[in-house]
Amino acid sequence: MKLNKLLPVSAAAILLPTLAFAQDAAPSFDEIGPYIMTTLLFCMAGFLVFFMAAGFAMLEGGLVRSKNVTMQMTKNIALFSIAAIMYWIVGFNTMYPGDFNGWFAIGGQTVLDPVGVAAADAALDYASVGSDFFFQLVFVAATASIVSGALAERIKLWPFLAFVVVLTGFMYPISGSWQWGGGWLSEAGFSDFAGSTVVHSVGGWAALAGAIVLGPRLGKYKDGKVNPMPGSNLALATLGTFILWLGWFGFNGGSQLAMGTVGDVSDVSRIFANTNMAAAAGAVTALILTQILYKKPDLTMVLNGALAGLVSITAEPLAPTLFGALWIGAIGGVIVVLTVPMLDKMKIDDVVGAIPVHLFAGIWGTIAVIFYNGDASLTTQITGIVAYGAFTFVASLIVWFILKAIMGIRVSEEDEMAGLDMSELGMEAYPEFSKG
Amino acid sequence: MKLNKLLPVSAAAILLPTLAFAQDAAPSFDEIGPYIMTTLLFCMAGFLVFFMAAGFAMLEGGLVRSKNVTMQMTKNIALFSIAAIMYWIVGFNTMYPGDFNGWFAIGGQTVLDPVGVAAADAALDYASVGSDFFFQLVFVAATASIVSGALAERIKLWPFLAFVVVLTGFMYPISGSWQWGGGWLSEAGFSDFAGSTVVHSVGGWAALAGAIVLGPRLGKYKDGKVNPMPGSNLALATLGTFILWLGWFGFNGGSQLAMGTVGDVSDVSRIFANTNMAAAAGAVTALILTQILYKKPDLTMVLNGALAGLVSITAEPLAPTLFGALWIGAIGGVIVVLTVPMLDKMKIDDVVGAIPVHLFAGIWGTIAVIFYNGDASLTTQITGIVAYGAFTFVASLIVWFILKAIMGIRVSEEDEMAGLDMSELGMEAYPEFSKG
Amino acid sequence: MKLNKLLPVSAAAILLPTLAFAQDAAPSFDEIGPYIMTTLLFCMAGFLVFFMAAGFAMLEGGLVRSKNVTMQMTKNIALFSIAAIMYWIVGFNTMYPGDFNGWFAIGGQTVLDPVGVAAADAALDYASVGSDFFFQLVFVAATASIVSGALAERIKLWPFLAFVVVLTGFMYPISGSWQWGGGWLSEAGFSDFAGSTVVHSVGGWAALAGAIVLGPRLGKYKDGKVNPMPGSNLALATLGTFILWLGWFGFNGGSQLAMGTVGDVSDVSRIFANTNMAAAAGAVTALILTQILYKKPDLTMVLNGALAGLVSITAEPLAPTLFGALWIGAIGGVIVVLTVPMLDKMKIDDVVGAIPVHLFAGIWGTIAVIFYNGDASLTTQITGIVAYGAFTFVASLIVWFILKAIMGIRVSEEDEMAGLDMSELGMEAYPEFSKG
Repeated sequence: MKLNKLLPVSAAAILLPTLAFAQDAAPSFDEIGPYIMTTLLFCMAGFLVFFMAAGFAMLEGGLVRSKNVTMQMTKNIALFSIAAIMYWIVGFNTMYPGDFNGWFAIGGQTVLDPVGVAAADAALDYASVGSDFFFQLVFVAATASIVSGALAERIKLWPFLAFVVVLTGFMYPISGSWQWGGGWLSEAGFSDFAGSTVVHSVGGWAALAGAIVLGPRLGKYKDGKVNPMPGSNLALATLGTFILWLGWFGFNGGSQLAMGTVGDVSDVSRIFANTNMAAAAGAVTALILTQILYKKPDLTMVLNGALAGLVSITAEPLAPTLFGALWIGAIGGVIVVLTVPMLDKMKIDDVVGAIPVHLFAGIWGTIAVIFYNGDASLTTQITGIVAYGAFTFVASLIVWFILKAIMGIRVSEEDEMAGLDMSELGMEAYPEFSKG
Repeated sequence: MKLNKLLPVSAAAILLPTLAFAQDAAPSFDEIGPYIMTTLLFCMAGFLVFFMAAGFAMLEGGLVRSKNVTMQMTKNIALFSIAAIMYWIVGFNTMYPGDFNGWFAIGGQTVLDPVGVAAADAALDYASVGSDFFFQLVFVAATASIVSGALAERIKLWPFLAFVVVLTGFMYPISGSWQWGGGWLSEAGFSDFAGSTVVHSVGGWAALAGAIVLGPRLGKYKDGKVNPMPGSNLALATLGTFILWLGWFGFNGGSQLAMGTVGDVSDVSRIFANTNMAAAAGAVTALILTQILYKKPDLTMVLNGALAGLVSITAEPLAPTLFGALWIGAIGGVIVVLTVPMLDKMKIDDVVGAIPVHLFAGIWGTIAVIFYNGDASLTTQITGIVAYGAFTFVASLIVWFILKAIMGIRVSEEDEMAGLDMSELGMEAYPEFSKG
Repeated sequence: MKLNKLLPVSAAAILLPTLAFAQDAAPSFDEIGPYIMTTLLFCMAGFLVFFMAAGFAMLEGGLVRSKNVTMQMTKNIALFSIAAIMYWIVGFNTMYPGDFNGWFAIGGQTVLDPVGVAAADAALDYASVGSDFFFQLVFVAATASIVSGALAERIKLWPFLAFVVVLTGFMYPISGSWQWGGGWLSEAGFSDFAGSTVVHSVGGWAALAGAIVLGPRLGKYKDGKVNPMPGSNLALATLGTFILWLGWFGFNGGSQLAMGTVGDVSDVSRIFANTNMAAAAGAVTALILTQILYKKPDLTMVLNGALAGLVSITAEPLAPTLFGALWIGAIGGVIVVLTVPMLDKMKIDDVVGAIPVHLFAGIWGTIAVIFYNGDASLTTQITGIVAYGAFTFVASLIVWFILKAIMGIRVSEEDEMAGLDMSELGMEAYPEFSKG
């Protein structure tokens, strides 16, 4: 609000260009309309995906025990902030090299369009740099949030944040460039519309590597039994899920990367409808399946079922019919219900179910592309899945082992029993509510 | 994100159509601008109204006792998911038959516009099917959420969800078609801009029928006294109210159904201002009135006062002046404060105050249309109110009785005392906080 | 939803105006596009800033003790509602007089554009009145929320709300007119893009005056020691912070006041990117600094660090580079960490840290304008800071003293010990959770 509302900054630039004088006075909307709409799409989708940071925080804060809630909040706000800085320093220009120049090229800092950029200097066939950077940035943060949930309740704060630095500044942008940066997988025909593999499975692989190196929580697997450690606040976890679902409209809808033509804006709305359907199908499937398997519906499975539906449709939210979105999402829900106990059998302790939701459903979603997108082939899809998996899992293992060797990644047994809130931070999340 | 950011999918379609060649290269924004803006309106309003699902969940989760919170979360995410599926299978095409062909015609599945639909094949005078479907779909879910709140703390999960199937797949779409589908009430001149009657009172009537068939909670009305059962988390209930208020900008604003002209976008903003004013007036009125009546302001009444203000303005958020929105909303606030105890006197147990907010304020709002909309008449408004009431109340009674006969709708006394979370789901929402 | 979807209200107005007939059939998008986009910007930014009301409520509700949560919720929903009404009655037209006519001129009620306003009657070089009013209105409410947090846990409800009436109806609009109404500070060249001073420091000064008149909470400063009174729900406080961060995209982005040209929409996206960076930098700085100073990161400082980063960038979110946003926000984070204990040493009891965040970081942000905006001078920036400070602080002191004399502003010692929820409202926020 630089000036009086009656004299906005840009008034001079837009004062009544009549049709006759349009060529002289200002560029026509036929020229600049698509740029304006697509830039708006990125801003809008960007703030929706930004809000997913809150969704992850609430979901994870609701699913950990109350003695670890302050830590989970700290990690989530810190990881988003670190991702924002790292992606600016190197990430964005590593991921989008334009002229793709190799696997491990590291880019420089992001530079925005100048203030009040002229139409002649703008990427009229795309969108402003600021909107693109902002939109891509909030995706990275989602990847890091996935790791945060899986490794909760026993990992130290600073080693976790050190991992986030590497993940968001280097690992994610390097592998992301293979596909969205126009690299070898993109050239090979791999198809991943909004990131079932590029974003979600990458987070899942990093989490899996961490969970293996870190080991399960104390007492989780004892005498051959799985000891349930129920989340402290299921209302919060439900809120988190709804926020993530909301954010996903931006995640998938914004990935259309254009909104300035009839076809593009219609496609964005098609993606909204399909995304919603897949989430609904995942939730209903998990509800019915847990009723059948356990005789009682399981809310945490329903929440993860919705999220798995969302991850499943993320690789191809545009091409499927609504029925396609339904069954793709439903299989996502089945995957979560079946693989959560499987991980427990393997004694891999994933506190919030992030690996089934983001990795397993992410793989499924990437394969499911072939059913509705004629350009995709199973071989190429599997090539992409394996490439992202191998790179991310191995690189993550190396980073986790290095962090373990240098600074240790796990709190002491005593501290874990006491809870990370008191031992690491000296601050309880719910100091007044006595524990039952 | 199908491709490198430098080569967006749609680049070819939008590459610099100059004014001179506009007719050949691509349709002009004068032709397609309104379609793009209205489709965007539906997407944006749609995600706002979607988020109301979270608002209802938090409001209801905050107003029930802690032993029923997991159940309330499960119902809310499940009802939204079921509504999404049912509205796709039959609801949307039952409600909007185009060529309205009778009261109980049942439509088929929703089919979206093809991927990348050409301008020549799109409904250029309206919006994309996907955006319209998504926007209408989130409205249905709101109706079901209203029922969920009123019947909390004693209804079984599955019979409730069975009712949701009937409500969202058949009852709401059939009665909705009378007005928004271009049916007999629309032809008769009934006026209900965004659904005080079509959405809110329908939810209210269904809830009222359910509350009567189900009976009050154990111990609620004992020895001629009303036994207060305070909500377990008023912070959550307040959050839910704010989320609903936020979503209402989409609910009412999106119902302008167009955003591509000066008049339409200005009307959308007029609706935003009026909607906000009515909510504020409802809240302030309830605050002052509870201070006067009970000597202490009552937060739950203030929250419901804001919601009643919103429901009251929903039938006509466009025509009133800001002062009109103020007094229409204020009367909504009065209605809530006066009718919540009235229902208790009638021993109708509405856990969250959904019937006063959505049914009583909905009736008021539908009548209030006549004060600012010259085309509306009291007779026709009352006709509409009675028609929706008679159909929905009777149909709901029948469905509730059938469900009662077939599977029972109420948990056992023992289970109700223990709380639905443990008895029906085996999972507490706040397992660690000891109960006072 | 007045009519059948197939026959929208505005259909006639937009039916296929071909390029050739554009002058006759309907105004061209070249003429009306900017108006439509800017009106949309205000609606969108407006609902984001509206949601900040929920953010403040959750932040404050999480940082007070559980015995004062219901009161904090009541205050926050009431203050927003009162602000909405007062800004309509006098505020908006006091603040934006167009022909600025003096320091204490009081305006009349806001009048919206007529329904379906024609292009010829609309402010085509700006936006609709409804959108502008709504956008400005949600800013006022933010100012009042700042006061609510600082004075929590001991101020009576009604005197607080009386102060809100004066603040939102008169104090804020009068001083706001000096800058955004085109008044003397605007003419002098003072620069405050989105309100580090006009909004945030005004709230901070009003809070500071109140905190001095009101005195600290019982037992806060005892025997020369600062007695920590930890917040009752840090998950809620974190949620509130994320919501505020989300809302800030609207707060700063909408303050571009235009979105219909390549330059304007690019600037909006630039502002998004910078706003996000400043918040991230504030959070990371507070995290590192509390680790260094106290050996343990402090979540409440990290949350306030993010908010201080946001306040710091608010005076100039457009001109800085991303690196500029980083260091401006980082210094905001430092300010919070250093000044929270300073206030405690002065025995000024600010429950949520609102004064450091909104006043101190607001001053910093206003000064920082000079580093990236060539039109700003240090002298003028300080003139503005002092003018707003002197007026708001003195006027607030006077109002607080009058309220103290007339009705008393502080609850009794007994009531404060018992908590405001029971003593003032008779309603606990978490009635079932026993206190440890």
